[in-house]
Amino acid sequence: MADEFDVVIIGAGPAGENVADRAVRGGLTAAIVEANLAGGECSYWACIPSKALLRPIDLMGEVGRMPGLTLGPVDVDAVLARRDEAVSHFDDGGQVGWIKSVPAEFVRGRGRLDGPKRVLVTAPDGSTRLLTARHAVVLATGSHAVVPPIPGLAEAAPWTSHEVTAAKSVPRRLVVLGGGVVACEMAQAMHGLGAEETTVLVRGGLLGKMEPFAGEFVAESFAEAGIVVRTGVQATKVERPQPGGPVTVHLSEGPPIEADELLVATGRRPASDDLGLEAFGLTGGRPVEVDDSMRATAITDGWLYAVGDVNGRNLLTHMGKYQARVCGDVIAARVKGERDDLPSMRDVAGAHGAPQVIFTDPQVCAVGLTEAEARARGFDVRVVEYDLGRVTGAYLLGDGYRGRAKAVVDERRRVLLGVTFTGPGVAELLHAATIAVTGEVTLDRLWHAVPSFPTVSEIWLRLLEAYGL
Amino acid sequence: MADEFDVVIIGAGPAGENVADRAVRGGLTAAIVEANLAGGECSYWACIPSKALLRPIDLMGEVGRMPGLTLGPVDVDAVLARRDEAVSHFDDGGQVGWIKSVPAEFVRGRGRLDGPKRVLVTAPDGSTRLLTARHAVVLATGSHAVVPPIPGLAEAAPWTSHEVTAAKSVPRRLVVLGGGVVACEMAQAMHGLGAEETTVLVRGGLLGKMEPFAGEFVAESFAEAGIVVRTGVQATKVERPQPGGPVTVHLSEGPPIEADELLVATGRRPASDDLGLEAFGLTGGRPVEVDDSMRATAITDGWLYAVGDVNGRNLLTHMGKYQARVCGDVIAARVKGERDDLPSMRDVAGAHGAPQVIFTDPQVCAVGLTEAEARARGFDVRVVEYDLGRVTGAYLLGDGYRGRAKAVVDERRRVLLGVTFTGPGVAELLHAATIAVTGEVTLDRLWHAVPSFPTVSEIWLRLLEAYGL
Repeated sequence: MADEFDVVIIGAGPAGENVADRAVRGGLTAAIVEANLAGGECSYWACIPSKALLRPIDLMGEVGRMPGLTLGPVDVDAVLARRDEAVSHFDDGGQVGWIKSVPAEFVRGRGRLDGPKRVLVTAPDGSTRLLTARHAVVLATGSHAVVPPIPGLAEAAPWTSHEVTAAKSVPRRLVVLGGGVVACEMAQAMHGLGAEETTVLVRGGLLGKMEPFAGEFVAESFAEAGIVVRTGVQATKVERPQPGGPVTVHLSEGPPIEADELLVATGRRPASDDLGLEAFGLTGGRPVEVDDSMRATAITDGWLYAVGDVNGRNLLTHMGKYQARVCGDVIAARVKGERDDLPSMRDVAGAHGAPQVIFTDPQVCAVGLTEAEARARGFDVRVVEYDLGRVTGAYLLGDGYRGRAKAVVDERRRVLLGVTFTGPGVAELLHAATIAVTGEVTLDRLWHAVPSFPTVSEIWLRLLEAYGL
Repeated sequence: MADEFDVVIIGAGPAGENVADRAVRGGLTAAIVEANLAGGECSYWACIPSKALLRPIDLMGEVGRMPGLTLGPVDVDAVLARRDEAVSHFDDGGQVGWIKSVPAEFVRGRGRLDGPKRVLVTAPDGSTRLLTARHAVVLATGSHAVVPPIPGLAEAAPWTSHEVTAAKSVPRRLVVLGGGVVACEMAQAMHGLGAEETTVLVRGGLLGKMEPFAGEFVAESFAEAGIVVRTGVQATKVERPQPGGPVTVHLSEGPPIEADELLVATGRRPASDDLGLEAFGLTGGRPVEVDDSMRATAITDGWLYAVGDVNGRNLLTHMGKYQARVCGDVIAARVKGERDDLPSMRDVAGAHGAPQVIFTDPQVCAVGLTEAEARARGFDVRVVEYDLGRVTGAYLLGDGYRGRAKAVVDERRRVLLGVTFTGPGVAELLHAATIAVTGEVTLDRLWHAVPSFPTVSEIWLRLLEAYGL
């Protein structure tokens, strides 16, 4: 029957796509249901457009530190045009073509559970189609930006990550609510592309989940760039009398701020609201809890899986894709009655602490546990830190290079529990740390991994020397 | 006695300095003898100035691929001024101060063996001083550029790496003999900083010791930039009638080339000529062969060590420093009668294949064995390659990103024997490979080291997928 598949996946973001790819590679048939654009949030309104906006600013910083080079004024329209190209002008034809090439069935519409292993799809024209999964349904619906219940905020139709990454022009005055990754990256992007008054309102410090120095470096850079960061101040009321007109943000202390746009970046919520989960004892709007094979723990028959943001494990594209590979492989193994407990069929990386890069200037990246997390978990922790600006390879990148690195060591096993770098251009330093942390490579083995001179990676030698090797 | 030390080191380059540092840390006294500038070739006439010259060109390439940004003409004087700053204006006061702070004795002059454990130093003023080593003498004298015996070449006083990295201006017409790292980097630097006619004469292809595609990418980039690469053509005679005037290079075929400067970059030779080695059965001008603890194998009493270029193992600053750490630690252990066979006291990295970065545009970096080397050594080899330009993180760096990655796998152990990357800005990708290769992290463990999206490091996922994981 045409509407029966081994696996039915709701959500065609990177996670959903990867489940289909791996399941089909394992010999199964798969359908993917998507209400919006195939490719998902990441491709159109998150990772891709944000990095397309940030890369020129990154380069402007790099050139600014290099004597002998001078930049002309940035052509914002050209930057926005490249962003548009990077998001394929919001046309998902390429992604749909890729899904078909897997091959998997692409079904446009909103998917909702309609009984065990049954997904009812409501197409944009209102027609419905029932898809039956012979073995598994996988939720890969991602997450939504949270708009906090501040009076007048929702009515002011603020920007979220969705709108700011798709901006057609740069507001002259921008207020940002929040201090996490989206808040920092987008304050940087808009300010770097011409916003004259950019104010970030954050309850604690910037990037509060990272090692403290990371947020401090970013705050210092923001201050120098003229981005105002106000900590400990909360928005109490928002007014926007004219749709699209100026917005006034009233604060818990001091005078209100007037701006041309308001960006809300105060967190995300799993997109599990309208999936019919309640019939199976789950709560919409909450993460769908899964085991390390991505199977929903609440469903006894084991036909439901969840990957990516919707399971709440790690709200990062690469982690969603990783979970999806686990999920697609494990479903295929279970269908075929093969071993389903191979090392590749479990989420091992998540427990170590997911790697993450923040593309501000300076960049921040980290993997594993922060010192605070490691201590809270009871590890026998030792910490080493080093000034990245003292590494010759960093000095050669430009004048006044500032950065920092920190390694959190498990003294008992002499392995790294976590590593954090901040500084211009550190993004590609992270993967070495990810291998070291996830692979549990001992410090004594890392000692023989000689960093090439003069790269910034020589920080590895400095950290190990600082440790006492 | 003031002129007796536990260790006497000849050569105050990075390798010699690191021996002193580690030996003193181990409780010994040390003296370093240096005829030239403390800090060595690397600090004044190699790694440091070459990267100071190349970084602006690198950035020019990056900006050129980024719509929305426009560079003004490069200010060559400012670039040369920053190079001068990077080499401390050829003043080694800072380095001498560092040596003294170790603390170690710094002795300026030419050191020569004058019997077992005896080093006779001839100072610049011709006076001599005899240093006695209680335990060990360490040779860390580096290497010299080779000037091949082409008629007229030596008489033409050509540039070597020494002169080109210290150039006070950029020649309008430059001929480069050789196709290795120095040849490629310096052709790129001089051309990027304004040389109008740059011709590289190379017997085989560019970067012949790397995976073949590396040299092909660089050759393609050179062609686009207007750098002429002539392969299979040899210089047969050189004429320079006026010192400092134009130079004519006659070729094995075709008309001669006239240029304003000639750079010889055809290899290096250990600086072991004038060390008095012959008295101990060694041959000056040849590498001083050492065991994995850096002890010279030809000296039965075991008091002579050699680190860095002079032992011929790996002519790379970081490998010399690594050997120096081994050497300083092992000497201290032997003096104190402690265990001298700890894992940190042997050169383990060299056998895996040293990491190296070439700072051309595109950059090239590699660690471990090439496919050809791995096959020659009889490994059960499988190779995977991937187009770096297809990685999202690379696309986001700029338009028309071109690059390639190759992994050489030992099928028996499922570990990486070698990895090569080429592409703009890949230098910092290397250390992940160095950890994977040196640490012998299995592919199945690497699978759980999730690259952060959207970084160029996602190439790791692509390579592992291409392998079949």
